[in-house]
Amino acid sequence: MGLYQRWRRLRIPGLQACGLHTVREAAVPTPPHWLVERLGLFEELWTAQVKRLASMAQKEHRTIKISLPGGQKVDAVAWNTTPYQLAQQISSKLADTAVAAQVNGEPYDLERPLETDSDLRFLTFDSAEGKAVFWHSSTHVLGAAAEQLLGAVLCQGPSTGCGFYHDFFLGKERTIKGSELPVLERICQELAAAAQPFRRLEASQDQLRQLFKDNPFKLHLIEEKVTGPTATVYGCGMLVDLCRGPHLRHTGQIGGLKLLTNSSSLWRFSGAPETLQRVSGISFPTAEELRAWEEWREEAELRDHRRIGKEQELFFFHELSPGSCFFLPRGTRVYNVLVAFIRAEYTRRGFSEVKTPTLFSTKLWELSGHWEHYREDMFALQPPGSDSHAGSQSDHSTSHPADTLALKPMNCPAHCLMFAHRPRSWRELPLRLADFGALHRAEASGSLGGLTRLRRFQQDDAHIFCAPDQLEAEIRGCLDFLRSVYTVLGFSFRLALSTRPSGFLGEPCLWDQAEQVLQQALEEFGEPWDLNPGDGAFYGPKIDVHLRDALGRPHQCGTIQLDFQLPLRFDLQYKGQAGALERPVLIHRAVLGSVERMLGVLAESCGGKWPLWLSPFQVVVIPVGTEQEEYAREAQRSLRAAGLVGDLDADSGLTLGRRIRRAQLAHYNFQFVVGQKEQSKRTVNIRTRDNRRLGERDLAEAVQRLLELQNTRVPNAEEIF
Amino acid sequence: MGLYQRWRRLRIPGLQACGLHTVREAAVPTPPHWLVERLGLFEELWTAQVKRLASMAQKEHRTIKISLPGGQKVDAVAWNTTPYQLAQQISSKLADTAVAAQVNGEPYDLERPLETDSDLRFLTFDSAEGKAVFWHSSTHVLGAAAEQLLGAVLCQGPSTGCGFYHDFFLGKERTIKGSELPVLERICQELAAAAQPFRRLEASQDQLRQLFKDNPFKLHLIEEKVTGPTATVYGCGMLVDLCRGPHLRHTGQIGGLKLLTNSSSLWRFSGAPETLQRVSGISFPTAEELRAWEEWREEAELRDHRRIGKEQELFFFHELSPGSCFFLPRGTRVYNVLVAFIRAEYTRRGFSEVKTPTLFSTKLWELSGHWEHYREDMFALQPPGSDSHAGSQSDHSTSHPADTLALKPMNCPAHCLMFAHRPRSWRELPLRLADFGALHRAEASGSLGGLTRLRRFQQDDAHIFCAPDQLEAEIRGCLDFLRSVYTVLGFSFRLALSTRPSGFLGEPCLWDQAEQVLQQALEEFGEPWDLNPGDGAFYGPKIDVHLRDALGRPHQCGTIQLDFQLPLRFDLQYKGQAGALERPVLIHRAVLGSVERMLGVLAESCGGKWPLWLSPFQVVVIPVGTEQEEYAREAQRSLRAAGLVGDLDADSGLTLGRRIRRAQLAHYNFQFVVGQKEQSKRTVNIRTRDNRRLGERDLAEAVQRLLELQNTRVPNAEEIF
Repeated sequence: MGLYQRWRRLRIPGLQACGLHTVREAAVPTPPHWLVERLGLFEELWTAQVKRLASMAQKEHRTIKISLPGGQKVDAVAWNTTPYQLAQQISSKLADTAVAAQVNGEPYDLERPLETDSDLRFLTFDSAEGKAVFWHSSTHVLGAAAEQLLGAVLCQGPSTGCGFYHDFFLGKERTIKGSELPVLERICQELAAAAQPFRRLEASQDQLRQLFKDNPFKLHLIEEKVTGPTATVYGCGMLVDLCRGPHLRHTGQIGGLKLLTNSSSLWRFSGAPETLQRVSGISFPTAEELRAWEEWREEAELRDHRRIGKEQELFFFHELSPGSCFFLPRGTRVYNVLVAFIRAEYTRRGFSEVKTPTLFSTKLWELSGHWEHYREDMFALQPPGSDSHAGSQSDHSTSHPADTLALKPMNCPAHCLMFAHRPRSWRELPLRLADFGALHRAEASGSLGGLTRLRRFQQDDAHIFCAPDQLEAEIRGCLDFLRSVYTVLGFSFRLALSTRPSGFLGEPCLWDQAEQVLQQALEEFGEPWDLNPGDGAFYGPKIDVHLRDALGRPHQCGTIQLDFQLPLRFDLQYKGQAGALERPVLIHRAVLGSVERMLGVLAESCGGKWPLWLSPFQVVVIPVGTEQEEYAREAQRSLRAAGLVGDLDADSGLTLGRRIRRAQLAHYNFQFVVGQKEQSKRTVNIRTRDNRRLGERDLAEAVQRLLELQNTRVPNAEEIF
Repeated sequence: MGLYQRWRRLRIPGLQACGLHTVREAAVPTPPHWLVERLGLFEELWTAQVKRLASMAQKEHRTIKISLPGGQKVDAVAWNTTPYQLAQQISSKLADTAVAAQVNGEPYDLERPLETDSDLRFLTFDSAEGKAVFWHSSTHVLGAAAEQLLGAVLCQGPSTGCGFYHDFFLGKERTIKGSELPVLERICQELAAAAQPFRRLEASQDQLRQLFKDNPFKLHLIEEKVTGPTATVYGCGMLVDLCRGPHLRHTGQIGGLKLLTNSSSLWRFSGAPETLQRVSGISFPTAEELRAWEEWREEAELRDHRRIGKEQELFFFHELSPGSCFFLPRGTRVYNVLVAFIRAEYTRRGFSEVKTPTLFSTKLWELSGHWEHYREDMFALQPPGSDSHAGSQSDHSTSHPADTLALKPMNCPAHCLMFAHRPRSWRELPLRLADFGALHRAEASGSLGGLTRLRRFQQDDAHIFCAPDQLEAEIRGCLDFLRSVYTVLGFSFRLALSTRPSGFLGEPCLWDQAEQVLQQALEEFGEPWDLNPGDGAFYGPKIDVHLRDALGRPHQCGTIQLDFQLPLRFDLQYKGQAGALERPVLIHRAVLGSVERMLGVLAESCGGKWPLWLSPFQVVVIPVGTEQEEYAREAQRSLRAAGLVGDLDADSGLTLGRRIRRAQLAHYNFQFVVGQKEQSKRTVNIRTRDNRRLGERDLAEAVQRLLELQNTRVPNAEEIF
């Protein structure tokens, strides 16, 4: 198909029916000259490359050994045999589902001829690497559509952890509108359906500059990123793009594609920043997979904690205190139960809760280093004018100029003051100080969102001051703490050890020892863990904790972090067993992390169907008729006296069935229905929120059983009542 | 005794032995001319008054009827019979101990002749009114001593709730030093011992100005305060002072007197303020009573909560956060137990705990009125520069200039926002929102002291939004809440109703109704209460609560306060039963008040000997020998698993007896001693902190019993174990 035919093909008749007219559609019946020139040059270079490869294959005709995934070894022809051909030999299914190959560990196009003896693996959409190739290929389709429909000057189009986006320039004034996405999406789908091959071209720097002479972004990227004599360019349909690859064999592998958001982004290079347009999307091998994802997303939106928070009256936000949450009675209950859970663990595990101030002189933050590194995220203030009224005070203290104060963003410096406020002995170590104090961080207003990012929050924050030889046991204790809590909350998790970064502070031998201790503790802990070399903080190595909620979504909440610097800055010391002063090691650790954020994660993870122990909707008592209302109130009082949430639905305007249904929709774990029989026998008729009928039980016994189930924090009280 | 003799008498030989020389002692062998003149004039006027009275008594010779305290009626002679004479007729003891009389409800000198038929009562030192007369009389003695020893120009000398003070002027540069107090005190004692009578003189305004022509303070007071044609002046020894009276019969009634503090104070009148010297003291009818008071004071100092806080490691303060307390693990335990106690009451009483932000836009404080009236006590700040990084955010919110923010000094406005955040119905009322949020108030650094006055504190603060017809029941509920909590804490209390002040805001009929409702609730409550007319806040009437701790010292902690203004300012409304929008009434109430301050009051009240349920020193386990150490640890673990404080003293360097003694000095409620026998039988040998031996008990049963005693919050667990 010639260039002009291809271009015309884009003027899909249906687009006019959409009522959307683009500038280009009417004004440019032919492709722009720069695109004609670029495509012409690409075709020319491509033809030369095809010839060159063919002649190399013919000249050498060398047989090479390829190890296949199963361990099998097969022969291939250098510069000729492709991974795709070998996949076909293995199975047609593999050939169909493979998105790219790995050759000797390097990503590789399926259609690119193999060159030497190789170890060959195939990537499918099921792996993270496979998804990255798939989504990156999809962004080429998006780029082509934007170039052709909107006359976009393309910039960059990477894959992300959950799809892809493409940034492009439309002119100083022009922005992309949400209403334009459906048309763009339709063109993407057409281009995908056209099953256009991705063609990999190796080009010299000169050739690159020639190809992209009309695109300042690409020219800048060539300048910045292309360090070798050549780089790769991919052609796919009418798009030619500078790109490292690899890609799908052809766009037809994209069975389902959806564009999601439009926004703007900023391109910064040497000159003034340029505002670009960004379109993001997601794609799948099949339309069915796209549909399944859309259902999942709908579910996730239903589970959005802001939505649950509003529907269940857990919390709200107010413009008079942006970034700080107002917890309503039900939300406060969940909050307090979470805190009580951690407090109970603190008691069991020998942590000591303390309470420290909220406002400190900036002298403290200078000492801790926060003032230097974290100042712009802190709320600072001058205390109101302290003009001393002489009055009748007996102390005539001279008035000092008052210090600047700042709200604490972290508890550690206060805990260091507490450690240092009197001499310490080795007998007191490990000293584990825990603090639920409110922290304030001046997050930009644009970044605030629900409970995920707040300006005010509390952490289940603790600092362990220990002797170096206690470190390993303490780390093991921290890991065990994490596992206990996450197990109760129904989360799986994965650990990663982050070791010293370049520019770390402190003695290398201290780091060696500490990293070894952490590694040892992780080994003994018995859960799988990853190594992130160089990813530690400059003040100490750390263990990152990634939990996965019930929807399989990742969150980073807990942390275990060593700190060699704060004990130095605060000159912390204790009298060692031998009598000499020694320096403690400091461990920062949290399990829930921000209690607020964890509450949001839990709300979404359970979709508002709280486990009994956390639930702000434990029981609703429903009298069958008005004659049972007094007994229903008595049942409610019994529940409340036991500290359980006992609500009452005596709305005589609704039938019993409707009230039961209403209670179940509100996710009350249990409904206690009381009729004449129950009243006379002092029992309750129990149903669960899933409408299982547990039948008649003695009221006092039912309350007792609920208490047991609550106190053991079981996840499935409704099933095992 | 002539004036010069009296003056010379002051040059007590002993004073020279003290090594203290005053300027006056050497330089003024004779009294200053103004004193001579004033005394001369006083004697002249006094003689005339004596004559006048005698002639009136003789001329009329009228018999008058006097009702005595017992109900008895006696005859007396007008202008002749004195209350003192009648007291002598009743009993010589009464005549000796009476400090003044009340005649027809008015305070009256004992030696002042009665004029008409009267109802006569006697005041003794035992009553508050008697103490006021006693201490006010004592301040004349102090004034005379200051005039004579220091050449002071006297200003004012009132009695206070716990003694008296006298303000006087010594010259621009001269201040009174602490080292001068002993000499001054000795002169006071001499003057008291001299048993100089108080002589009451009625003088015209002209005579007053003549008497005090050398004292600008008195001249000013005459100008300001003397509104009638005459006023009273009292002569006592060499002192003549402008004074309303009444006084003791003579200074000899002051059996014990002690000067306590020296400080400066400020005298403000039309001109520039003048710095005065203030000396305070206390006095008693007998030296024994003074000694008893001194012992009590010593005890109170021992009980100073700052001292207990330090000794028991409950909390400390740090210059990097002045006015904010650092609660150490033990203090945090007491704190959390107090909060848990109130939380349990909230559950019982239908209060809903909520959590509200700490920082709010000043727009909120403008709305609530705090910004106008309370601004200088608030910590305000500008949020750090919010230069919006355009980044790749999908929302391009235009950046508004950020509001000024302020730390909340009170919770009420946040609770009003919460009430208003969605439409409310009468069905939801009364809505009782409780909040333990941290409050910040910018108290001057000079006024900070221990936990009594802080810049950061938390309250057991709640706001009740109710319909007007629910007010009485809610007030009764608040009173009952107060009584329950104070009874558990071991406090007695007294209530006072403060009604509308001049300049109150709102409808008079609303006030009428509310005051009536409060009065009704107080009546039904059944405890005695006082009326303070005009003492309410401008926004509503209130019930003041004065509690008395175990030492009998008064504290104001709880409050119940009506507010008609905030619901107006926040335009709070609910849909009434009839469908129309109605305005709720707001009740501010607290029982503990500041949790921090209450912790201090409790520490002093129990003198560090905490009742079991609050105690951070519940049990220490003491193994007899090292062989029992493991079992002792096991006992400790049992205690801790039950949530009790279980410490261990296995210090083998000390004998068992010494360790028991140490535990008792540290006020551990119980000591669990474990020897070989206890180990083999799994028992513990229990002693109390008062060294009562409770004998051997099963370990598990002992733990169970402690839990019971803790959970019932008994004050005397050691006695009833």
